[in-house]
Amino acid sequence: MIPLRRFSLSYKKLPYNVVWIEYPEVEPTLKALGIAPTTKKPDGSPMYTLPAIVDPSTGTGVAESFAIAEYLDKTYPDRPLLIPSGTRALQAAFIEAFIGALVSMFRFSFLHTAENILNPSSSAHFREARKNDVLGGLTVEEAYPTGEQANAEWKKVEQGFAKIDQWIGEGNKFVMGDTVSFADFALAGFIKYTRFSQGEDSPKWKDVASWNGGRWTRLVRDVEALTTL
Amino acid sequence: MIPLRRFSLSYKKLPYNVVWIEYPEVEPTLKALGIAPTTKKPDGSPMYTLPAIVDPSTGTGVAESFAIAEYLDKTYPDRPLLIPSGTRALQAAFIEAFIGALVSMFRFSFLHTAENILNPSSSAHFREARKNDVLGGLTVEEAYPTGEQANAEWKKVEQGFAKIDQWIGEGNKFVMGDTVSFADFALAGFIKYTRFSQGEDSPKWKDVASWNGGRWTRLVRDVEALTTL
Repeated sequence: MIPLRRFSLSYKKLPYNVVWIEYPEVEPTLKALGIAPTTKKPDGSPMYTLPAIVDPSTGTGVAESFAIAEYLDKTYPDRPLLIPSGTRALQAAFIEAFIGALVSMFRFSFLHTAENILNPSSSAHFREARKNDVLGGLTVEEAYPTGEQANAEWKKVEQGFAKIDQWIGEGNKFVMGDTVSFADFALAGFIKYTRFSQGEDSPKWKDVASWNGGRWTRLVRDVEALTTL
Repeated sequence: MIPLRRFSLSYKKLPYNVVWIEYPEVEPTLKALGIAPTTKKPDGSPMYTLPAIVDPSTGTGVAESFAIAEYLDKTYPDRPLLIPSGTRALQAAFIEAFIGALVSMFRFSFLHTAENILNPSSSAHFREARKNDVLGGLTVEEAYPTGEQANAEWKKVEQGFAKIDQWIGEGNKFVMGDTVSFADFALAGFIKYTRFSQGEDSPKWKDVASWNGGRWTRLVRDVEALTTL
């Protein structure tokens, strides 16, 4: 059901098991594993987030995908690098910039996520958490764009993808050209979440798949081709 | 008075003359030189912007600093690259992300720019243009943060610099580590504009200079050391 492949681990050919945890169990589970919180809730208290890994060969636990990528590159430097030498700051800024460009997508995705993807206990937790952080007090239903606002917000998503398309430029397969990197894994993950939350046959996914000459489906396919264990 | 050094041209050891143009003359001058507009005004009409170059050895005119950097790398590939191979998208996203992180600075800088830096004809043009684009209808006086809002907005600037400091990471001189690149020139240019618009002896500049272990003054100094003609 939910796509299981972890791009960073697979690209480095590090075998793994995925354990799914319901949202209410995230904080106690990570605390028990001694994994530090990655950010703060709007009230200032520590926030524990997934993804997180526990590396059985070192006993180390790490949360947050960029920190995980850095840990894996440092611990397994002889495997292909997720963050090519000298690009750490650029990769981090790329993640921030592409999510900023596509931020309007979240209001379209959260309702589907709460209704169709998550189990009830996770769904209730997700609804409350997103209301208090990303959605600034709105419920996922209230935040879901409708009518004229839906057209305007969807136009922003299209413009966001167009901007990223311009950054990557014609003829480049990946963000860094021929070399795949963490930036592609993050972007491909976002695109897969869009496809999964909207549904493969939805008009919204068909729009995304049609934009920028089909670049976004190709990116997912090209990333997946390089991330088989 | 205004710092004359152009980082990209200097780094590539390409000699240049700087010609200053008052804002009302930008559009007719670039049109006469056959240089295309780089963006659109809020009303949808084309917008002509500086910086722009005319390369006498090819007769080519190019506007917008990133496009200029790409042109220079393409035309003078044997000189040190401004955009190291494979980093085009990452560099473009970095510019977007760092400006997003520091966007609160503009409201502090625009009033000083209009009052103390620009000549009267440019100042009038600048006030009208910024009111209609960045400031969403506010004058530079109305947008200048005061009272509690000033503290909140200045805190956002500090947090923005802290975020960029985290991206670059400890021990790294430049965005890409030991290698200087366009990203550093853009960031150092922003920092110099802050120092210049606030004034070297202003409390605001002293704050910026004190943040993140003095990284921002060092960055300007290190960039300047590599960009002497």
